Amino acid sequence: MKKFALLCLVIFLSFVVCLSINAAQPRAVPPLWQVYQQSLKTAKYVDLTHTIAPAIPVWSGFGPSKFEPTVNPNTGKPYTYQKDGFEATHYDLSTDQLGTQLDPPAHWNPDYPAIDELPATFAVRPLVVIPIQNKVAGDPNYHLTVKDIQDWETRHGKIPEGSVVFVRSDWSKEWPNPELAKRKKFPGVSLQALQFLHLQRKILFHGHEPLDTDSTPTLEGEAWLLKNGYTQAEGVANLDQVPETGALVTIGYPKFQGGLGGYARYIAICPPDWKYGVSVGQISESPLQKANKPLRWDQQLNLRVR
Amino acid sequence: MKKFALLCLVIFLSFVVCLSINAAQPRAVPPLWQVYQQSLKTAKYVDLTHTIAPAIPVWSGFGPSKFEPTVNPNTGKPYTYQKDGFEATHYDLSTDQLGTQLDPPAHWNPDYPAIDELPATFAVRPLVVIPIQNKVAGDPNYHLTVKDIQDWETRHGKIPEGSVVFVRSDWSKEWPNPELAKRKKFPGVSLQALQFLHLQRKILFHGHEPLDTDSTPTLEGEAWLLKNGYTQAEGVANLDQVPETGALVTIGYPKFQGGLGGYARYIAICPPDWKYGVSVGQISESPLQKANKPLRWDQQLNLRVR
Repeated sequence: MKKFALLCLVIFLSFVVCLSINAAQPRAVPPLWQVYQQSLKTAKYVDLTHTIAPAIPVWSGFGPSKFEPTVNPNTGKPYTYQKDGFEATHYDLSTDQLGTQLDPPAHWNPDYPAIDELPATFAVRPLVVIPIQNKVAGDPNYHLTVKDIQDWETRHGKIPEGSVVFVRSDWSKEWPNPELAKRKKFPGVSLQALQFLHLQRKILFHGHEPLDTDSTPTLEGEAWLLKNGYTQAEGVANLDQVPETGALVTIGYPKFQGGLGGYARYIAICPPDWKYGVSVGQISESPLQKANKPLRWDQQLNLRVR
Repeated sequence: MKKFALLCLVIFLSFVVCLSINAAQPRAVPPLWQVYQQSLKTAKYVDLTHTIAPAIPVWSGFGPSKFEPTVNPNTGKPYTYQKDGFEATHYDLSTDQLGTQLDPPAHWNPDYPAIDELPATFAVRPLVVIPIQNKVAGDPNYHLTVKDIQDWETRHGKIPEGSVVFVRSDWSKEWPNPELAKRKKFPGVSLQALQFLHLQRKILFHGHEPLDTDSTPTLEGEAWLLKNGYTQAEGVANLDQVPETGALVTIGYPKFQGGLGGYARYIAICPPDWKYGVSVGQISESPLQKANKPLRWDQQLNLRVR
């Protein structure tokens, strides 16, 4: 009987030890959080978006946009940090085709989705960057060809289905020169290239630096895309700072009901050893860094500056 | 000598075979693309963003916003699909504190960054969702406490540094009832909870469903955050459709120069077996699905609807 009691005690103690080990063990990190810790947190982030200001290049057919301080409707006077402790901004935006854009097909075809009707899966994708800047240097009206895409694939492998393909032309290096929007010759993307990317490679969407897809009189590339239910990015920036392959891109845009473009945000997530971009924690995020000058409303520029 | 020549031939042929195998081998997928293929592509995506329309709830001190079709400045007439082959939208937005927001500290303190000055690392983060909806059901003015956060940690482990913490109250289930913005009692986040999240847990930012952080007369929580260089999300939606732990969130917002809030986009990336959300490819993306009715401008609602 003594032996039996001893056995019982040993079993009981083993059970207690087992329980306490279990409680003390660190909880397993959920898989998507592991992905963040191991891959996304160590990445370099590059913003591919232009800052929107009243004087940025825009098609003359849309007219100018205006920024104003938000006004108290009861007094008709702007809210100020000094008087009210806060400020806000009134935007009079003549078009949703402004700055860096994500065009939904309803911009040209009301049978297809508006900006608020795109699925939530437009969030993050593999990013392909096809360079044509050397050809554009010799011909400002150069348009991406199927051959350029095939050359990219010879160097890097097949473009992944569902990816975002941005065409680097370095057109945006002159941004925000307002003359940019008036030029008849600019680097474009040929209809054949668009059809190859969508019909053969089944990409999510392509993007380009200029404010139009091509310089044909009928805008044949944009017409084919939007009339057939495809989306596209316009006014993309900083493509000289991202790798041709191996980065991801986050896709953000406000959700205006029945809206037809505009105000998108693209951020490239590049490998940790990439030469450009900012790492998580490299710039103080929370709290953010104080600036060396306060923001103030500039009456000439009609926006808040430092 | 014959043996030597044979040996040379064998070495040469081995070399050729080696080269050709190398060329035929599939190229290694870059690490971040592997992350997409293995983890992000199979995830479920849930939009945490309200659609912006002229009649959504907004603080009466900001006044209403207006949507109009974009007008041709030469004719004064709106562009129409029928006449021009495209349409665009004119937004007259009385405030950048509208809809689902990302408040930069410059909303209250001009010494800290405006919306266009946040680092590009505000792109994707681990998402923590702390539920208080059961307590709010008994007290519509319930505010998140430090104890609620500690209870979450007892269930799920420590909140990761740099994460985004959204507080689920189910307040947004009544959205877009315009009465929502007038209520003096609403679920909030206590100053102590905000300080615990930022000073002890070092999160990136927190977010809540209502349009203010707390119901104190001085808005003490928002004041502490924004005056000290922190950001926050407001008007967050659909938190009943995301897990308390283990999801990621993408963060998007337009980059208006000197801007002070507004028009943000948050999309949760949830595990593949999560019960809510849409998978990549589940809804046709490229081309998108045709709608059953065309978009048209509604003169009563003052926006484009189907």
